[in-house]
Amino acid sequence: MLRSEVKRAQARTAELFAKAGIVLTAEESDRIEVACFGLGQLETQGLELITYVNTDRYCAKDLVLFPRQTCPEHIHPPVNGEPGKMETFRCRWGSVMLYVEGEASPNIQAIVPARSAASYTVFHEIVLLPGEQYTIPPGTKHWFQGGPDGAIVSEFSSTSRDEFDIFTDPDIVRMPVILED
Amino acid sequence: MLRSEVKRAQARTAELFAKAGIVLTAEESDRIEVACFGLGQLETQGLELITYVNTDRYCAKDLVLFPRQTCPEHIHPPVNGEPGKMETFRCRWGSVMLYVEGEASPNIQAIVPARSAASYTVFHEIVLLPGEQYTIPPGTKHWFQGGPDGAIVSEFSSTSRDEFDIFTDPDIVRMPVILED
Repeated sequence: MLRSEVKRAQARTAELFAKAGIVLTAEESDRIEVACFGLGQLETQGLELITYVNTDRYCAKDLVLFPRQTCPEHIHPPVNGEPGKMETFRCRWGSVMLYVEGEASPNIQAIVPARSAASYTVFHEIVLLPGEQYTIPPGTKHWFQGGPDGAIVSEFSSTSRDEFDIFTDPDIVRMPVILED
Repeated sequence: MLRSEVKRAQARTAELFAKAGIVLTAEESDRIEVACFGLGQLETQGLELITYVNTDRYCAKDLVLFPRQTCPEHIHPPVNGEPGKMETFRCRWGSVMLYVEGEASPNIQAIVPARSAASYTVFHEIVLLPGEQYTIPPGTKHWFQGGPDGAIVSEFSSTSRDEFDIFTDPDIVRMPVILED
């Protein structure tokens, strides 16, 4: 991803936060993380987030999904003998469709990203509107997509160790290099 | 505290959340916790909160302080061999003055509640405006007060075990009985 794309996505994310009444400091706005997963199609498969705190006991982030943007399927494995990350997603604005292991829901609302369709394997659907939340147990494959207006989702969790996440799509690189343009 | 007082404080809290664009479900609005600490002066010493999630690994709440309302000084002790609760306060709306152990700040902005003045002993001041946050290490005495407009504060933390909190004021009862009126 080019630095200019990162900057554009950061600005769009900051606008969405402002629209939802979520205030960031200038320092935080500058370090909004733009995850393109090395796939080169941020609008389709990507995620924007701000990490407020990540200690050895807990973590809190606010996530942004642009309209129909998908965070690809992944799992949080155990690390250093600790169970995998446990996370609670709370929809703050917009809507988000979440998919976890379990009985596949008929006629899911999300559009599976065509390029990586084979790497989406769990289809038990939970739709979250503002004020609604869902806790994903450790060791559960999951993916999620923003609704037609996008979404802002608070993520409360145990310690975050993103570098250990296992994605179903083998083409994914969680921390790709950002190229100066 | 009377049931009718609880209901009034819940309604006022729900209004403040709405004003700040924070959406609760109807079920959540009905279980907003109103803590009067058994002191019978909720407006001066009290706290309103909604707990979103509290697992054996992490906890997330949104706290409301009415204008100049104070959450009295307390400490989170170790429980079952685990270090005391660690918590991050993030101001979302209004302003909050937080006091922790350390060098006393000259001319603090808070008004120490007169009735319990002797039970406020730490005066290192941190003022948080929207977007600003502070992490309180385990085993640190602290108290906090809403600014002139009150405050909404997100609390991200390790597991919450409020019943073990130790308050400096011996008159405080963390979980007083609610009387039907």
